[in-house]
This record gives sequence, structure tokens and C-alpha cells, in this order.
Amino acid sequence: MKKDKKNKPSKDLPLGFVDRREKELLVRDFIISNIKEVMIKYGFQYLETPSFEYSDSIGKFLPDKDRPDEGVFSFKDENKWLSLRYDLTAPLARYVAKNYLEIPKPFKRYQLGTVWRNEKPGPGRFREFLQFDADFVGTNSLQADAELCVMISEILEKCGLVKSEYVIKISSRKITEELFKKIKIENNDQRLIVLRALDKIDRLGWTAVKLLLGKGRKDQSGDFTKGANLTPANIEIIEKELKKKSPETDDLKEIFKIFNDYNLLNYKFDPSIIRGLEYYTGPIFEVNLIGDVKNEKGQVIQFGSIGGGGRYDNLVNNFGNIEAPATGISIGLDRLVYALMQKKDFKIKQSKPVVICVFDKNSMKDYLKLLTTIRDAGISAEVYPGENKLKKQMEYANKINAPAVILYGEDEIKSGKPTLRNLNNGKEKSIIIQELVNEIKKII
Amino acid sequence: MKKDKKNKPSKDLPLGFVDRREKELLVRDFIISNIKEVMIKYGFQYLETPSFEYSDSIGKFLPDKDRPDEGVFSFKDENKWLSLRYDLTAPLARYVAKNYLEIPKPFKRYQLGTVWRNEKPGPGRFREFLQFDADFVGTNSLQADAELCVMISEILEKCGLVKSEYVIKISSRKITEELFKKIKIENNDQRLIVLRALDKIDRLGWTAVKLLLGKGRKDQSGDFTKGANLTPANIEIIEKELKKKSPETDDLKEIFKIFNDYNLLNYKFDPSIIRGLEYYTGPIFEVNLIGDVKNEKGQVIQFGSIGGGGRYDNLVNNFGNIEAPATGISIGLDRLVYALMQKKDFKIKQSKPVVICVFDKNSMKDYLKLLTTIRDAGISAEVYPGENKLKKQMEYANKINAPAVILYGEDEIKSGKPTLRNLNNGKEKSIIIQELVNEIKKII
Repeated sequence: MKKDKKNKPSKDLPLGFVDRREKELLVRDFIISNIKEVMIKYGFQYLETPSFEYSDSIGKFLPDKDRPDEGVFSFKDENKWLSLRYDLTAPLARYVAKNYLEIPKPFKRYQLGTVWRNEKPGPGRFREFLQFDADFVGTNSLQADAELCVMISEILEKCGLVKSEYVIKISSRKITEELFKKIKIENNDQRLIVLRALDKIDRLGWTAVKLLLGKGRKDQSGDFTKGANLTPANIEIIEKELKKKSPETDDLKEIFKIFNDYNLLNYKFDPSIIRGLEYYTGPIFEVNLIGDVKNEKGQVIQFGSIGGGGRYDNLVNNFGNIEAPATGISIGLDRLVYALMQKKDFKIKQSKPVVICVFDKNSMKDYLKLLTTIRDAGISAEVYPGENKLKKQMEYANKINAPAVILYGEDEIKSGKPTLRNLNNGKEKSIIIQELVNEIKKII
Repeated sequence: MKKDKKNKPSKDLPLGFVDRREKELLVRDFIISNIKEVMIKYGFQYLETPSFEYSDSIGKFLPDKDRPDEGVFSFKDENKWLSLRYDLTAPLARYVAKNYLEIPKPFKRYQLGTVWRNEKPGPGRFREFLQFDADFVGTNSLQADAELCVMISEILEKCGLVKSEYVIKISSRKITEELFKKIKIENNDQRLIVLRALDKIDRLGWTAVKLLLGKGRKDQSGDFTKGANLTPANIEIIEKELKKKSPETDDLKEIFKIFNDYNLLNYKFDPSIIRGLEYYTGPIFEVNLIGDVKNEKGQVIQFGSIGGGGRYDNLVNNFGNIEAPATGISIGLDRLVYALMQKKDFKIKQSKPVVICVFDKNSMKDYLKLLTTIRDAGISAEVYPGENKLKKQMEYANKINAPAVILYGEDEIKSGKPTLRNLNNGKEKSIIIQELVNEIKKII
């Protein structure tokens, strides 16, 4: 089946996509099971919507433009456009609209799922993410918004973080909406340009953002981003407002009171929190980790948030006359995993098999008898999958970090005493079968 | 935000996609955690590849034609085609080719993931599936193939099935390949038409399949499927061979010996097992459930397999000169969940919250104190998320199947004795806070 080099398929992945390996996946499983436990305790219901939706069902609220083939992965199916979901919130709104008569009101649901963004690929920019969301739909109560912040706090602490390692930054879209009235932004395009500029305060700083609010900005690569064309006076009004230290909106005052009732401590009012998505209408929040996070080269990087959310009272209403004010939170699992893996004191046990070496295929029945004894005790084990020189089998056992190998050759089978070699210290021991499990337990 | 009816987005899902609800998802989680436990015990390594691959990396082995936009969901990205994976095996081959120097040999990995098929939508035909795969890559040993069958058997029994409820049907591609030599099929197109026809024996029966092997067949809807144009004599040779009761290939004889060593009982040689995918080269197997499975209308349906797999020795080799003979199994989780949910004795506990009713928003601090006490005991609970008449709150509690509500009005707060109403029998009890958790535990 030798092929011409030209016809060989690519071994590479498309930009923005990655393979994930055991350690990361085990940490992720640990986080997911913690989150699910908290979700149940808080009374949320499990739901899963599919990867694809009709583009028009989710397309109006795209982070970028609303052409179906920009920002999202879309394709034409018969006569309609389908898109891969870019978040879990827009599909929830569709689900609520579709099942409105049937669902409890309010409706509390959690969902775990992959979301996709068809953005221009670049270094470190992913196009596929795993998210965990929880939402309240059908309630105006700010107790719901507050409870989401309390819940994410409980989740992070369950995952091993302490209060000094994270902060919940909170603001409200009411602040920006009032500002926009004050400086008389009427055009929705201009409003979106301003929102997107303000969303970059954290990453670019005020100097750059002020250029984006004004005539525009040329970045380091020389690319020019068109600005919102606000007057210097108006830009100053915005800056002054967003640097305030305490909130003047009723919604935030009430939420802080509820935080106090819950005894939630590590939150912070931060009017520079904007959130990129257009659909928010009230309180918005972001969860940030505190402390250094390093990239693969060991450089300290600006890590940003591991989750956030806010109130979106009009999203379901877009499907028809359904009053379903809502609020939700989204946790970026890949980022949370990445951060947790950097904590020195965070360890996940990787269970590795004990390897039974194969001396002679005809003795397979004896090997399998040992194997079954060990596995029945709940211990990870395998017969070396193949026939090979003992040296190769040992190389394999070392490669997979096996804790031990079992040598069970002709003589050992005759005497009924396999040899157990501890791969941590290289020591060997001849053991009767009845004692094998106990001896292995001492090693693993 | 009232909209013109014409502009309202669709509430429906595209054909072939579904929303999944709590009970199904909890059963699925139970199955997944069982599978993962077994995977670790058998010494497999956890891996996750992304949803997207370059089409040319996975496109050569499509169940249908190999145009990138047929059978799979594909997108043009800059100058190359990307496709959503249609199985987890082709991406594994790409992963092995890409990381060949680094991985253990043999390489044993497991993976959980969604796969997509862009088939013509129709009733009951899904375009998105969740699969759980395990593969051995880099070994010729048939012990690997046998172990996959032993493993799926252990998984199914861990999920609650007994031996009489499933059977592992096994055959070998060597049987069909020898047949094809005998009847002199040379052209690969004809070979694929024959394979696809034979793959339908289970569903359509021999009469229909013989038409497909000959001049073709018109189905009930009137659609005509072109046949393989074999002669009646050759069709008879095929039928005779595939109705044999015991295997004559060396690979199967050896596997059955290993099954015997493992004491695996419920397998069955069945040469009519074909498997649709082109890449198989040796033993192939399918796991079938025995007993009636009903559809949503209560009609007994032909359920087919809940998983299967086989040996594919040349798949990795397509990426260059890499010798990596392999074998794997794929479990169709959605189907397994569906079947398990129909077992009368199969119950999954759905944890539902105790609801603390809201009489007065100003008492929130008192409600939250109760809430924290209950949740700290690990019990699912919530304060009713909103302000509403008590009647509405009770309707909500009934709708979500809450086991109990807590009434904590002005008088109860004063006396420090909330009222616990058991929603199973409607009985109420006034309880001091210290006893509340114990009383709730009696109800849930």
C-alpha cells in the first residue's frame, strides 16, 4: 500500500484545533464531576442541545458580523443554513422558545458542550472550546444573578482554589446603556464598535482603547482598526464613568446586598467589565484567576477570565412574544484546566497498568488467569499486547510508566510463583499467586 | 423588541438533530463512568482529538463517496477542506502518524466523542452521534482483538445487562476477501457495492440483498438502488459461504481459542457480519442486544447493534511508511442509552431540589441561611428563584418534582421553626432548624 508522497494525507491538524492527552483530560473530568455535583445541589436540570442549529436561530447574536459564514462554521443544507453553535446560550433560548409550554417556570438548566468559533486562525487562538453553562430562564430576580456568582465560587473552591486565587468582577450593562444615552449614541453599529472597544480595556489598556473609541488604532502588526469616532469630550465621559469605584445602579446595589447575605467575599465592582456578546441587558460578571499563569515556554502570560456571564432579558423574546428574562454563567473548561494544571500542589493520579510479559503465546491461558485475578481486584493490568523480545516488552512497560511487570515464564508457571518486578526501584520478588494482588497493592 | 412574524427565527432543530433531557443524560453519564473505569482497568490511555480534521486526512475511508462534501460535514478553510470527523478511528490513525516516534508501541487509547454524518435526513436518522472507542495500534496479536470483545462484555454487564441479553457476533474480512478472489471481483467500486449490500443482510434479509448483488433493487418508496451485477452463480457462492456455521479462517480459530481461555461465553460466529467501513482487514465484530426494543410509539423495532469494530491493519500506513496494524471497538452511546432506559429494572436517581418558598424578599437572608444549612449537608435545594404568589411557587415545586417545600414566613421566622411540606403525601411538619436536615433526609 505504498503511496506516492504527493498523495499522502496530511498528518497535521487544521489551525486552531488540538489533540488533548490523558493528564489534561483527567483534570478536566475531575473538574466536570465537581461542577455537576454543585449543579445538582443548586437544583439545576441537565440538558443537551445538538451541535448544529439553524443559523437564523442563533445567528443574530454573533460576536462578529451576522453573516452566517463569518465567525461561525456554517453550511447550506437543502435550502437553509445550519451553523455549529458558538455558545450554549443562544441554543438554550431556542430550546426554551420551542418547549415553552412544557418547561418549569423559572427554568434552571446546566449544559456541558463544545462550541466553535470560525475565527481567523492564529497562534494560541482556538476554534473549538468546551464550556459548562448554567442559566436561570424566566425570572427577573437578581437573587438568580447573585446565586450564579456564589455557585462559581463554590465550584472553584471544590476544585482546590482558595479565595485569594480568584476574584469575581461584576458590573452592569445598565452603566454602559446610560452612558450611551448621555453621549447620544443612536446607531447600533456605533454602539457595537464602542462595546467591542471597551471589552478590550483589560487586554490593551486605556490608551489603546481611547484610540479605538476615537479615530481608530494601528496595532503592532500594522493592521488598522477603525474607531467609533467619538469626540474627545465623550471619550473622557466614558473613561471617567468606567473608572468609578462603586456602582450607582440599583441592580448592582441589590446584588451586593445578596452577596452579603450569602457571605460571598471575593467579588469586586469593576465597570470596565463589558463582555463581548451583544445580548446582555443587566448585571454582567467575569471570573478571573489571580496569580501568575505561564505559557508553554514558561513565560508569565495575561490569562484573562475562566468564565463569566450576565443577564439577558430579551434573547428568548426574539422567537416570538415570550417573556423570559434570563441570566446565566459560562465556564471555559479548557482554560480552567490549564490554570489548575499549573498549580504545584494539584495532582491527578494517572492509573497505569501492571504489565504481564509474554514469553510464549501458548502460555496465554496462564497469563490470562493472572490478569483476571489482578483486574478482579480493581487493579489496572494488561498482558503485553503482542509477541516481542523481553527487552522490547520492558521498554514498553517503562514508556507507559507501568508500576510493575510480572514475569511468568516456563519455570515460574511450573512452580506457580510469578516474579513481580517493581519498576520504581527495579527489585524483583517471587510470589505465590494468592499473594500477588497484595504485593502489587504495595507498589501502586 | 416585538418583531415582524416573517423575521422571527426558527424554534425548530434541523432534521437529524435532537435535544436530550436529564434522564437520558444521567443514564449516559452512568454508562460513561462505567466504561471509563473498565478502560483504565484494561490499561488504555485517554486521548481526545478535535472535531475537525483536514478532509484529506480522514476522507479516504468515508462510508459513502469520498467527495469532501458528501457523507461528511465539510467546510472550505482558506485553501483546504476541513471535515467534522465521521468516526474516531480515522482521527486516531492521523494522531498515530503524527506522533509515531513519541507514543508507546503498541499504543492503547480510549476516546469519547461526537461524530457527524451528513446523510440525507429522514425519520429516525440522526446526523450526530456520541461514540466511545478503544483501540490497540501497533500489534498483530489477535489477543488484542479478543480482549476488545471481553472488554465490551464486561462493560455491558457493569451497566446491568446479563449474558442472555446480548451477543457478540464475529466474523472476518478474510472470508469476504477470499470470496471476492473466488468470484473474481477486481474493480474496487464493485467490491464496495457488494460489501454495502452484504452489510444489509441483517436489516433487509437475503432476498433483498441478492437483488442488490445482482441487477439492483427497488425499495418500498420506489427508489431504485443499482446492483453489483454479479452472476446468479456467484451470488449463490456468496450466499452459501456466508451461511456457514463455523469459521475456516485461521484468525477466527485463534480468537475463539483465546475467548475460551478468557471464559467468554456469549459470542457467535456469523459470517453475515460485514461492517460498512472499507478499512477493515481482519476479524470484525458487532455487539447486538437480544430482546425487544420499542420505539417511541411502543412498537417493537429492529434495534441492530450497539457497537462493533474490527481489525484495520493498513489505515495508519496510508500516512506514509508506518507499520501500525490495529484493531478497535466503537460503542454507540445513544443507542446503548436508549436500550438501557427500556429495561424495566433500570433506575437512575434524579436528584431534585427541596424548594424554599419566598414570602418576602426582605427575608432573603433568613431563606439563604436555611438554604446553606441544607446544601452543606449535600442535599439539593434552592430558594424559589423569583417573587410570586405562593400558589405559583407550589406549582413550580410540583412541576420540577421537588420532594418537599419549606415554608418560612414571618411567624415561622420569629419562632425559628420552618414548616416542611412533604410533596409526596402533602403532610406538613413544623421543625426546629437543627432538625431540618434530618427530617428532609427522611423524605428524599
